[in-house]
Amino acid sequence: MHVCALIHDDLMDASDRRRGAPSIHKQFETIHKDKNLHGSSEQFGLAASVLMGDLAIIWADKMLHESGVKSSQILSALPVYDEMRVELMAGQYLDVYEQALASESIERSLKVARYKSGKYSIERPLHFGAALSANAKSEQYGIYSQYGLPLGEAFQLRDDIIGVFGDPKETGKPAGDDLREGKRTVLIASTLSKSNGAQRKEFEKYFGKANLDQAGVEVLRSIIIDTGALKEVELLISQMTSNARTAAKSGGISPKAGAMLEEMAIAATMRKS
Amino acid sequence: MHVCALIHDDLMDASDRRRGAPSIHKQFETIHKDKNLHGSSEQFGLAASVLMGDLAIIWADKMLHESGVKSSQILSALPVYDEMRVELMAGQYLDVYEQALASESIERSLKVARYKSGKYSIERPLHFGAALSANAKSEQYGIYSQYGLPLGEAFQLRDDIIGVFGDPKETGKPAGDDLREGKRTVLIASTLSKSNGAQRKEFEKYFGKANLDQAGVEVLRSIIIDTGALKEVELLISQMTSNARTAAKSGGISPKAGAMLEEMAIAATMRKS
Repeated sequence: MHVCALIHDDLMDASDRRRGAPSIHKQFETIHKDKNLHGSSEQFGLAASVLMGDLAIIWADKMLHESGVKSSQILSALPVYDEMRVELMAGQYLDVYEQALASESIERSLKVARYKSGKYSIERPLHFGAALSANAKSEQYGIYSQYGLPLGEAFQLRDDIIGVFGDPKETGKPAGDDLREGKRTVLIASTLSKSNGAQRKEFEKYFGKANLDQAGVEVLRSIIIDTGALKEVELLISQMTSNARTAAKSGGISPKAGAMLEEMAIAATMRKS
Repeated sequence: MHVCALIHDDLMDASDRRRGAPSIHKQFETIHKDKNLHGSSEQFGLAASVLMGDLAIIWADKMLHESGVKSSQILSALPVYDEMRVELMAGQYLDVYEQALASESIERSLKVARYKSGKYSIERPLHFGAALSANAKSEQYGIYSQYGLPLGEAFQLRDDIIGVFGDPKETGKPAGDDLREGKRTVLIASTLSKSNGAQRKEFEKYFGKANLDQAGVEVLRSIIIDTGALKEVELLISQMTSNARTAAKSGGISPKAGAMLEEMAIAATMRKS
């Protein structure tokens, strides 16, 4: 399922690279050119990557169906699995739509983070795992939500920071790619709300420009730091992570599982790529 | 599932209309323009229609899971369902790839028809229905293949004829749309293999030209008729339909079901849209 999201996401964003290699639609464009095929290479890349993403959704289903997990557990997990996937698509559309609105609202950007990542990245996979296990107790679902929702949002906020400040050697993407793309994130909404007239004017001169160079990236990064937006988002991340860790420790799940969830919370929010 | 195929198919083909209305990516482009949203309307239409198609795959799954059919039957139908969907995606890719090769081989075009439609449109849905029913006998699967494969191919061949000769009032698409798109079908492969030098030169002057007008469409139609290609494909359709009807009558399935399959064979191959 996640592979589908990545293939289709890169196509939708027109992102040319992923983990240091050309993204799937770009790879098919290259095949089309190398083989001197007829028609537009771009349209071929589009068509092939739409189909590969569809195939990834279906293969994920097939893996679940053929996993060897007991039939009764698979059946009880299917509703959660479906819900998770519908929420992902809704969250992705919300993201695309907010980008098109060029939203400056912190609240709306947080809502996108909640739908796109909060549920899909952490909460629902935990529910899915619980539904697949014969031993999960019903109160565990609530704890997984208390843990998963803030952590998923924190995960997305970390992603947004990496998209601006990440090291290309670690991310596999060009530096400041999200700035070039003009991606509307909580970090950007916070920068705009905190900037004075001069900072805003300077910011808008560079933000979202496809030909943004390294010097322009540095200008934008400075404004994001100087306005205090970076600090604010880092604070949000640590508050949310702390809430998630509190839920992990709250009892109702085994201490061993709680300790693993705490480790995961740190890994998800302290990462560099 | 079929809705996904249509949404993604129109995007992949850059087909602007479907059943007399703008196709989904075009509708989202219009929303983007009407609301004066930021960024490229075309990229917004692409992103939204990729997501809507993904959502359609997932909703189809959800409908199956929530259909109320007995759990044991759903579980026995899932492998057929997965197989059907993988075959569809493989067939679609084969189609995209053959178009890019500008293939002139009748044999290869028939192979595309077999994968894209033979299995997906008729054979696999019958197997799926059998797997969902508690009473299906194992020998029925073979009969459904003997019926479904030739009929599915005939269905696709009829589609190819409609794409060239169809009446826009019945199809909801502009006349000769497949000719404008340069779609490589069995009908086109047959035309090229039967045409003499002059016919071929004339054919290539018009075929696959985006600005093809009604007069050009008429020229191409005449060549397709004069070479005998139309007659050949009609003959193939009636042979395949006859094979399918023979399988439907062969016993092993109830006479009532057999009669319905025969009716369906006629409807699928005599249609005008």
